[in-house]
Amino acid sequence: MKRFMDDKDFMLNNDTAKTLFFEYAKDMPIFDYHCHLIPQQIAENKRFSTITDAWLGGDHYKWRLMRAMGFDEALITGDADPWDKFQAWAKTMEEAIGNPVHHWTHLELKRYFGIDKPLNTKNAKAIYDEANEKFKNDPSLDVYGIMKKFKVYAVGTTDDPADDLQYHAIIRKQGKCPAKVIPSYRPDKAVQIEKPTFAGYVPTLAQAAHMEIKNAEDMVEALVKRLDFFVEMGCRASDHALISAPHTFKSVKEVNAIFQKKMEGAELNAEEVDAYKTYVMTELAKALAKRGIAMQLHLNSIRDLNQPMFEKLGPDTGFDASHDVNQASDLVAFLRNLSASHSVPKTILYSLNPGDFYSLATIMGAYQGDIPGKMQLGSAWWFIDHRDGMEYQIKTLANTGMLSRFVGMLTDSRSFLSYSRHEYFRRILCNVVGTWIENGEFPADMDLVGGMMSDISFNNAKQYFEGK
Amino acid sequence: MKRFMDDKDFMLNNDTAKTLFFEYAKDMPIFDYHCHLIPQQIAENKRFSTITDAWLGGDHYKWRLMRAMGFDEALITGDADPWDKFQAWAKTMEEAIGNPVHHWTHLELKRYFGIDKPLNTKNAKAIYDEANEKFKNDPSLDVYGIMKKFKVYAVGTTDDPADDLQYHAIIRKQGKCPAKVIPSYRPDKAVQIEKPTFAGYVPTLAQAAHMEIKNAEDMVEALVKRLDFFVEMGCRASDHALISAPHTFKSVKEVNAIFQKKMEGAELNAEEVDAYKTYVMTELAKALAKRGIAMQLHLNSIRDLNQPMFEKLGPDTGFDASHDVNQASDLVAFLRNLSASHSVPKTILYSLNPGDFYSLATIMGAYQGDIPGKMQLGSAWWFIDHRDGMEYQIKTLANTGMLSRFVGMLTDSRSFLSYSRHEYFRRILCNVVGTWIENGEFPADMDLVGGMMSDISFNNAKQYFEGK
Amino acid sequence: MKRFMDDKDFMLNNDTAKTLFFEYAKDMPIFDYHCHLIPQQIAENKRFSTITDAWLGGDHYKWRLMRAMGFDEALITGDADPWDKFQAWAKTMEEAIGNPVHHWTHLELKRYFGIDKPLNTKNAKAIYDEANEKFKNDPSLDVYGIMKKFKVYAVGTTDDPADDLQYHAIIRKQGKCPAKVIPSYRPDKAVQIEKPTFAGYVPTLAQAAHMEIKNAEDMVEALVKRLDFFVEMGCRASDHALISAPHTFKSVKEVNAIFQKKMEGAELNAEEVDAYKTYVMTELAKALAKRGIAMQLHLNSIRDLNQPMFEKLGPDTGFDASHDVNQASDLVAFLRNLSASHSVPKTILYSLNPGDFYSLATIMGAYQGDIPGKMQLGSAWWFIDHRDGMEYQIKTLANTGMLSRFVGMLTDSRSFLSYSRHEYFRRILCNVVGTWIENGEFPADMDLVGGMMSDISFNNAKQYFEGK
Repeated sequence: MKRFMDDKDFMLNNDTAKTLFFEYAKDMPIFDYHCHLIPQQIAENKRFSTITDAWLGGDHYKWRLMRAMGFDEALITGDADPWDKFQAWAKTMEEAIGNPVHHWTHLELKRYFGIDKPLNTKNAKAIYDEANEKFKNDPSLDVYGIMKKFKVYAVGTTDDPADDLQYHAIIRKQGKCPAKVIPSYRPDKAVQIEKPTFAGYVPTLAQAAHMEIKNAEDMVEALVKRLDFFVEMGCRASDHALISAPHTFKSVKEVNAIFQKKMEGAELNAEEVDAYKTYVMTELAKALAKRGIAMQLHLNSIRDLNQPMFEKLGPDTGFDASHDVNQASDLVAFLRNLSASHSVPKTILYSLNPGDFYSLATIMGAYQGDIPGKMQLGSAWWFIDHRDGMEYQIKTLANTGMLSRFVGMLTDSRSFLSYSRHEYFRRILCNVVGTWIENGEFPADMDLVGGMMSDISFNNAKQYFEGK
Repeated sequence: MKRFMDDKDFMLNNDTAKTLFFEYAKDMPIFDYHCHLIPQQIAENKRFSTITDAWLGGDHYKWRLMRAMGFDEALITGDADPWDKFQAWAKTMEEAIGNPVHHWTHLELKRYFGIDKPLNTKNAKAIYDEANEKFKNDPSLDVYGIMKKFKVYAVGTTDDPADDLQYHAIIRKQGKCPAKVIPSYRPDKAVQIEKPTFAGYVPTLAQAAHMEIKNAEDMVEALVKRLDFFVEMGCRASDHALISAPHTFKSVKEVNAIFQKKMEGAELNAEEVDAYKTYVMTELAKALAKRGIAMQLHLNSIRDLNQPMFEKLGPDTGFDASHDVNQASDLVAFLRNLSASHSVPKTILYSLNPGDFYSLATIMGAYQGDIPGKMQLGSAWWFIDHRDGMEYQIKTLANTGMLSRFVGMLTDSRSFLSYSRHEYFRRILCNVVGTWIENGEFPADMDLVGGMMSDISFNNAKQYFEGK
Repeated sequence: MKRFMDDKDFMLNNDTAKTLFFEYAKDMPIFDYHCHLIPQQIAENKRFSTITDAWLGGDHYKWRLMRAMGFDEALITGDADPWDKFQAWAKTMEEAIGNPVHHWTHLELKRYFGIDKPLNTKNAKAIYDEANEKFKNDPSLDVYGIMKKFKVYAVGTTDDPADDLQYHAIIRKQGKCPAKVIPSYRPDKAVQIEKPTFAGYVPTLAQAAHMEIKNAEDMVEALVKRLDFFVEMGCRASDHALISAPHTFKSVKEVNAIFQKKMEGAELNAEEVDAYKTYVMTELAKALAKRGIAMQLHLNSIRDLNQPMFEKLGPDTGFDASHDVNQASDLVAFLRNLSASHSVPKTILYSLNPGDFYSLATIMGAYQGDIPGKMQLGSAWWFIDHRDGMEYQIKTLANTGMLSRFVGMLTDSRSFLSYSRHEYFRRILCNVVGTWIENGEFPADMDLVGGMMSDISFNNAKQYFEGK
């Protein structure tokens, strides 16, 4: 029996897997190209005050598990005592067999705090005290310390086009952050015309772009102006939350009328909403393609399922789920249209439902070309971000395309404590590949395969996002 | 090589799995909370006369395999000689590699008849004679003997709200049955307004509820009266067969009009049907929530696919299949609406398509709270009730929530010979979990993990159904 | 660590798997019942001139990988130098870890050329020269040599009903081809009324059938006449490319009007298109059932996704993908209707999306009967034709039906170099089954289980297609 999460063999089930991980993957830098870190916290080199704050202050993955345990919401997102909350969390962890958050938690204890014990109700107090003590004193537990320790080469934050990116500018000017902090361009507010907040957002964006936005064409112009500003500030990727790809093609004139109608306060029907989205997303995709910026589509999430909890806590508080809307037809309509004008940008396709992976992986194969791995099946995302999910993503990609060109892992995290998840991914990747080699399914040329592991761990992402 | 289905290691691939199974799972009682046993047969302490009758008298799982073998229907559901039927079954088993019914059959031979041989065409006669002999003489082969031997704590039968539950009353009065026999509330006939049988059912239910049913509101009132009667009789769960969750919200007035229209003999369109179902199911869910009764939704089955066989044999004769209707949108509409009035009951979500598990498991996470494991991903059901299906259900649940709170296995069976399937499930569960521990993926605290195995085998179900 | 693709244990992970493969599967003949070989090339006993021509001349699987590598299209389908193309291919293979084409390539090098080295950029020239040399001189590298070496019993080509099958006649007359070369009946052009080519195809078919085609009834009559001709020429299967099964039932009169409308140049709406398809496919299915011919439905592919590449290269050039259209409802409507007249033919259901397998496997179970394995879940197809895909198909079939009756592998290939894929399949099959036996999950009766392996490798297909 292996020791619990022992560094030497956790998730590594044979010698080749170990060689690949320790010699080719473990020490590669991290390009965390999609995350939700708050730039201000980076600029201010934030330190958490307590482990409760760090772990339970904003992590809806953890909140969901605590709710499944039946704990009172006061102990989850409420105003209970930090220690009581931590105790509830320790009880949750004690039972969370098979859940990735159990592994993430223990990797964080090890890598951030040097605590190599399974968290449970018995040792919760000791761990609580030790972690909190380290938050006070350990120089490697502020943002810069963390980034240095984990060799974070770059992080891609998630930013609204109307954002002035002032903290990105400050971080750059300070020159103290060991990692590049680059914005990602997330124009959801400009795309989601069905939202009640849309009309109020238009003038905000107009102001940021120093122009009027009177129709959909203006909207695109403003968005492209902001995209150019983002690119100046280092942006290498956009990011879009969509149920499925927009696919309703109408004339500019019609789309302008839809915009007009919305701004006058009328309700739009589903077709109008999709026509507007199709127009804006198509024009944005073309602009991204021209600039060599990668487009990330995050598909098939269904959000805010719990009415009273949404009213109480707002979005992103643990009440979202994997949707099951059919993807292929819409996505193909969107991409085929772009292909007609040779305007498919570098694209990363994520779905929150693993049942979509097969379709996405084979669809993207129809748009490959120009550069290595131009079309990417995104890393196992959110609810799929566990061993089985990662293995399925890796194998689906390998079975249908070129795994060696994969841009690899991202945290998608709001927390500075998530970088150890790259280790988790790298272990799982090296184990899958190492197992193939042990089984005689690929030549045991370690330089070659090891090189692929280094590439997927870091080099591919660097080349993909920073190369032409 | 392991011996075929050897007790000591069948489905148990490492020492931890064995320890978990033999020390923590094997001897736990059985709470078979959803089955299709016939209460009268329990009250009468039924004995089968022959193994042909017991195995082939009503088991559509077996009939399907025999049809895939190309046997004449006379040997399957027809009037062929019992021994000829058994021979055909033995030939089917001889070839049924990889099919769960092969394992179930041999577990039944072992546990019910003490026969530890692989059934094949050569030994069919000997096994036939031995089993039939035991049916005549063995005291552990009547219903009470079986229930005692398998430590059956409770069985949840499946009953129509109009049922007077007389046999449940008799069983209780007799005091001889070693297991609690509790009704489950299955109001499909009152919900499926599209069926030609609906209008005829209304007066039956009205009579049972001692009231008139003149509209949809009356229907709900009658159903709730019957629910209260069922609860008095020990009912702890409802059960609903639905393609997908109803999700068409209309006013009570409109729904009453739909009811009226149906009772006048008019055809309803799909929207009207769904509006009626939405109203009734919503009101029932509220009533269940108030009473602490669990709601079981059985989703995505498609039934009676073979026209002439349906006409010949009726429903539930082996001509059903896994449907592939999208679930998320409908289910979320139904549950979100309930959440607005804090009326989501304890809920178990089953789908007959494993492709739905991901969406169901994550959706249910948005309604957790109040009690441990309030929302449950139902055990691998019907066509999915095999090792791969069970492992996928267990891992999906673990990856996305708290496996430790799972209420575990049920047989869904019409047969008294199915209790050994709980052993099958427990072996598979302990093997999945034992393998994680062997691989260092969870602390090897056997009291803790063993406790979870006991809980999932029995304690959780007891607490879930009998607790508040 | 196993040696890379060593004959003795590649894909065979235990002794039982090896025994099953080497003693019962390896040397069975091949019934390649669905392929895309060109009959003229068989009649002419074609020899490829270079390995570049043989491998990269028409194989869109390979082209897709090269595009994912970012190679210029000139090196893929263009007019680059054959050696430059081969180099690009060697580079692709060097990196194609986990992709089935990597395994196929090396099995072909071994079995066709006797080259037992991993292809990479270093040895590419030596392998290129050696393979090309053998194409010039090796007598086992013309079509007949290949078929003899691989014990090809029969190949089912894919032919249009209007085809005169002259090369089939010539091959038969020549009497030199070691394998039966039988046509398969693929009436897509007569079914796909939505295509602009439909109207032009009608007179072609009419001429071949020596009759006028003035309406849909005539179309069916002509198709059945051609079917009878095909059956005379040895045809044992039809083949149909469909997104999902047609399911719109209209009267003959209405369908004739739809046909008329199309022939007059009007646009048909989706319902009309499906009504025509439903009528023709239903009548064809009945004709197939009467003649004992198997119907193959190839479902859920989405084609020609890349506009400019389609314009440049035409169809079947690597721009297709796995679709995700819901299948169950349409398929059940189609088959249930046939069942009403006892006219479901022998049917093989393929989907290009593994997410459909569960529904297809259980649906087909509702139409089993008459002969062993009448309804078949088709072998893992196209994008799913890899180890994981094959294992999933095998396990899904075993879990829900009788694996022992499976008709097994087909290449679906345009190439004479693909027969080693039967070896690939047989190794994977024997490994799955051998592992079950090693684990004590099925009796280790090697004659019995070995017989099943022989059956699935060859005998079942022979019986299924050539038997009544």
